[in-house]
Amino acid sequence: MVKNASVEIGQRHRDIAARLPELKADALLVSAPANVRYLSDYTGSNGLVLLLPSETHFFTDPRYEISARQNIAGHVHIVKGPLIAGVIQVIKRKRLKKIGFESGWTQFDAYQRLKEGLPLGVSLVPVGRIIEERRMVKSPAEIDTIRRSVNLNSEAFARVLKRIRPGVRELDVAAEIEFQMKMLGAEKPSFDTIIAAGPHSALPHSHPTGHQIGANELLLIDMGASLEGYASDMTRVIHLGPPPKRIREMYRAVLEAQLAGIDAVREGTTAGKVDAATRNALKKYQLDKAFVHSTGHGLGLEIHEPPRLGKKDQTKLQAGMAITIEPGVYIEGLAGIRIEDTVLVTKNGCEVLTPTSKEFVHL
Amino acid sequence: MVKNASVEIGQRHRDIAARLPELKADALLVSAPANVRYLSDYTGSNGLVLLLPSETHFFTDPRYEISARQNIAGHVHIVKGPLIAGVIQVIKRKRLKKIGFESGWTQFDAYQRLKEGLPLGVSLVPVGRIIEERRMVKSPAEIDTIRRSVNLNSEAFARVLKRIRPGVRELDVAAEIEFQMKMLGAEKPSFDTIIAAGPHSALPHSHPTGHQIGANELLLIDMGASLEGYASDMTRVIHLGPPPKRIREMYRAVLEAQLAGIDAVREGTTAGKVDAATRNALKKYQLDKAFVHSTGHGLGLEIHEPPRLGKKDQTKLQAGMAITIEPGVYIEGLAGIRIEDTVLVTKNGCEVLTPTSKEFVHL
Repeated sequence: MVKNASVEIGQRHRDIAARLPELKADALLVSAPANVRYLSDYTGSNGLVLLLPSETHFFTDPRYEISARQNIAGHVHIVKGPLIAGVIQVIKRKRLKKIGFESGWTQFDAYQRLKEGLPLGVSLVPVGRIIEERRMVKSPAEIDTIRRSVNLNSEAFARVLKRIRPGVRELDVAAEIEFQMKMLGAEKPSFDTIIAAGPHSALPHSHPTGHQIGANELLLIDMGASLEGYASDMTRVIHLGPPPKRIREMYRAVLEAQLAGIDAVREGTTAGKVDAATRNALKKYQLDKAFVHSTGHGLGLEIHEPPRLGKKDQTKLQAGMAITIEPGVYIEGLAGIRIEDTVLVTKNGCEVLTPTSKEFVHL
Repeated sequence: MVKNASVEIGQRHRDIAARLPELKADALLVSAPANVRYLSDYTGSNGLVLLLPSETHFFTDPRYEISARQNIAGHVHIVKGPLIAGVIQVIKRKRLKKIGFESGWTQFDAYQRLKEGLPLGVSLVPVGRIIEERRMVKSPAEIDTIRRSVNLNSEAFARVLKRIRPGVRELDVAAEIEFQMKMLGAEKPSFDTIIAAGPHSALPHSHPTGHQIGANELLLIDMGASLEGYASDMTRVIHLGPPPKRIREMYRAVLEAQLAGIDAVREGTTAGKVDAATRNALKKYQLDKAFVHSTGHGLGLEIHEPPRLGKKDQTKLQAGMAITIEPGVYIEGLAGIRIEDTVLVTKNGCEVLTPTSKEFVHL
C-alpha cells in the first residue's frame, strides 16, 4: 500500500468511527466487499473489518496471510474456517456490547449465526449504507483514478472502433475491446461488455452473440474498465453505412436528452431533477415511454453505487460525486439508442470526464 | 430457450416444488442469481422466481421485458421499482401463508422489507441451500456444457503457452488468455485469471501485475472460462528455463497429492476423505503445513458451488458432480505450486475432464 492510500484509509476509519455514537454502536462490522476494500485496500474475496472507535481489526483466511500481513494496517487476524468466529472472539475480548452490522449486505443466515455466537447481552444494530454514503463523494486520489479509468476506456474504444467492419461478430468486438482494456492496464471490464447490433440493441442488457454485424446496421457499445478497482462506464451508438432518417431522429433526441441531463447536474440539485431533465427532453419527441430505465448511477469501487438518478430520488448531488448520465430509448424490433458519459459533479455544474465524441459516427 | 432446456427447467421446478411440503412452505421465493438462472434461464441481474406447487412466477424490471416475454416459461411479471412489491401482490392474490426464502442469500434488510409488506398471518420460512443441493448433481446436458467449457479453457491455455517468453508481463499473459477464451466462444473468464511469476505464486490468490516474467522463473496460471453460463477451472505451473531441484521436488509432491485426490474420488465417498487423501500425500514430504486451502470445490453455474472438499466435509459424493481437485503448497518468498483439474464423479471413480498434460513444462 502506498503511503497516501494508507493516510486516506486512516481518515476513512476515523470518519466512520466518528459516527458510531449516533448509530448507538460500540463497533461496526463491515462485510460488503467494496466497503472492506475501501477500509483496508484488501482486494480478495474473503475479508471482514471490525471498526472500533480507535482501532481496526481485519479478518481473512490463510490464503491471504502473506499479503494481508504485508499490506493491511491495524490488527490482522488470520482465521481458519468461518471468519465470523474470529470476529466473535474480538467482540468478547473487548467486551463490546452493541455491534453495528451492514443490514443491506448481511445475509439472514449470517446474521443468525452471528447472533447465536455472541454472549447474552450483546446486541446487533442494523446499520444502513453509511459507508456507501461516504463513498459517494470521491477524494482527489479517487477522482484521479476514475479519470484514468475513463480515459483508458475511451482509448480502448478508439482502438477498436476503427477495426469494426461488416461481417465482424458482436463477440469479436467484445473480446477485442476487453483485450485492449487490459493491454492499457485495466484489471478487467467493470461489467460484461454489451455489443448489440440492429434489433439486439433494443434489449437494454443484451449479451454479445455470434451475430455478424450487417453492412447497414446500428451498433450499440456499452463498456467500462476497472482500473485499480475503480470503474468507468460509457455507451456509444454507431452506424454501419448511412443511418435511416428514423434512426437519425432517435439519435438526435437521445443526444438532446443526454445534454439536458448533463446541464442539470450541479451540487445541491437532486438526483431526481437530473432524471426529470432527460425525461422531459424525450417527451418533446414522444420518446419518454421508450426510456425504460433511470438516467444514471454513481460509480467508483462498484459499477453501480449510490446515488441512483431515478424518478423519485431525493439524494442531493455533491461536488466530488462521479455519476453516469445515460438516457436511452428502445423500440422493439427496430433499435435501441443510448448515450452515456461518466461525469464529475462540481460546485457549479459538472465536468464530463468521458473524452469520446458524441457525434453520430457512420462507418 | 431451446426445447430441451425448457423440458429440463420444467423438471427442476417440479423437483423443487415437490420438496415444499417437507419445508412446510406453500411457495419458495428464489433470489440467488445462479438459482434464478437455473430455474428460468434468465441471465440478467434483476430477477426473482416464486415457485408454487404447480406454477411458477418470474419477476423482472422493464429493461428485460422483451427478452423475458420471449424466453421465460411461466407467469412473467414486469415490475417497476423493487421486484419484491410484485412478489407480495402474487402472495396476496394467491392467499399463500408460508413463504420459504433462501436464508443463505437473502439480505437482512430484504427479509425485513418482505416481512413488513406481507399481511398478518403470512410467515417466512428460512430455507437452506436446497436448490444448490440439486445443482450439485449435473444433468447430461449440463455435463456436456461443462465438458465444452473445460476443453475451451484448455485450448486457450495451449494457444497462449507457446507464446510465453521471458520479458512478457503477467498482465499480458492474462489479457491474451482471456482474449483467446472469448475467441473460442466463452462469455468471459469464470473468475479473474491468476498469472503469478516467481515468489508471486506463493500468494494463492495474487493478481497479475506489470512484472516481467524472468528467464528463470516459475509461472503459475489459474484460469477458467464461462461457457453458456458454466464454469471450468484449471491450474498449471510451468517453468522458464530448467527448474531448480527444490522446485522439481515440490512439483512432484503436489502432483502426487493431486493424483491421490483423483484416485480417492468415487460415488459414495465423502468430500472430507478426498481432502484427506491429498493432505496425507503431502505429509510424506513434510509439505502438508504449506497446503493452506481445501482440496477443491464443486463448479457449474458458479465457479464455487457445493460441495467443498475440505477437512471435515461429510458431503457424500454422487455420480454427476463436477468438482475440482487442486492441492497446492506455498512457501513465502520462494514459490507456490498448485495443480488443478476439473473432474466428473462417476459410479466407480471419476473422469478427469481436463485434457491438459500435467508434465512439468519447461519453456
